[in-house]
Amino acid sequence: MEQRISMITLAVADLARSRQFYETGLGWEVVSGATEGIVCFQLGGIVLALYGRAAFAEDAGLADTGTGPVRPSVALAHNTRTREEVDRVIDRAVIAGARLLKPAADAFWGGYSGYVSDPDGHLWEIAWNPFSPITEDGRFLWQA
Amino acid sequence: MEQRISMITLAVADLARSRQFYETGLGWEVVSGATEGIVCFQLGGIVLALYGRAAFAEDAGLADTGTGPVRPSVALAHNTRTREEVDRVIDRAVIAGARLLKPAADAFWGGYSGYVSDPDGHLWEIAWNPFSPITEDGRFLWQA
Repeated sequence: MEQRISMITLAVADLARSRQFYETGLGWEVVSGATEGIVCFQLGGIVLALYGRAAFAEDAGLADTGTGPVRPSVALAHNTRTREEVDRVIDRAVIAGARLLKPAADAFWGGYSGYVSDPDGHLWEIAWNPFSPITEDGRFLWQA
Repeated sequence: MEQRISMITLAVADLARSRQFYETGLGWEVVSGATEGIVCFQLGGIVLALYGRAAFAEDAGLADTGTGPVRPSVALAHNTRTREEVDRVIDRAVIAGARLLKPAADAFWGGYSGYVSDPDGHLWEIAWNPFSPITEDGRFLWQA
């Protein structure tokens, strides 16, 4: 099999609230023409989707996705082009309603990063990695 | 802020077991030179990382990531180039130790897909989307 991720779907308790966070709060552009009940964003070569919890569970054949905030076991990272941008993005996310989990700080691996969570508790690391800069077209290529 | 995901990190209970699932089981190539305690795979323009639960929680400033299987609130999708490939990939994943959550079937949105979970319970949808074929270089672009 090819080594690939095509889509990341986040289960959300309130689709309108989550859409507002990503679209209005972060300023991301929603893909038009998606099926009703799902909100999609094109991020480079993959799609990020927001999907109601009940539909998410049913689609995956899960009995339940639980209630209350998510119990995070997946972290998404948004890498920035500069160190200063980490602070700007975190500030914007917090103004948009994100919860600040870990203020930006120098990381043990040599970069600079912090963590916020979205309205459902999904984790986002905002990171500047000086060893693996984002390419012109937005790709993150691991540099050994 | 630019619309981007650079990295997806999965919290795992047993790094060796998870590495074996993705590397030996699925046949994915591990990026060399990563920091000890983290296993990375380059997937197009993003990096998938496996990271021990305790380190994951500490890095994100979480009190705890809980014990037992993960409570899935994020689904990753691997889109295939053909309908038949969905069955082949699911078979391979199950042989590698994945749990079959939902056998491949025609989906309401017009495609063909099924769900498996990895050794920790992280969700993977294996899907064929006839409306938005994977590009030659592996990108998934939403077609309205």
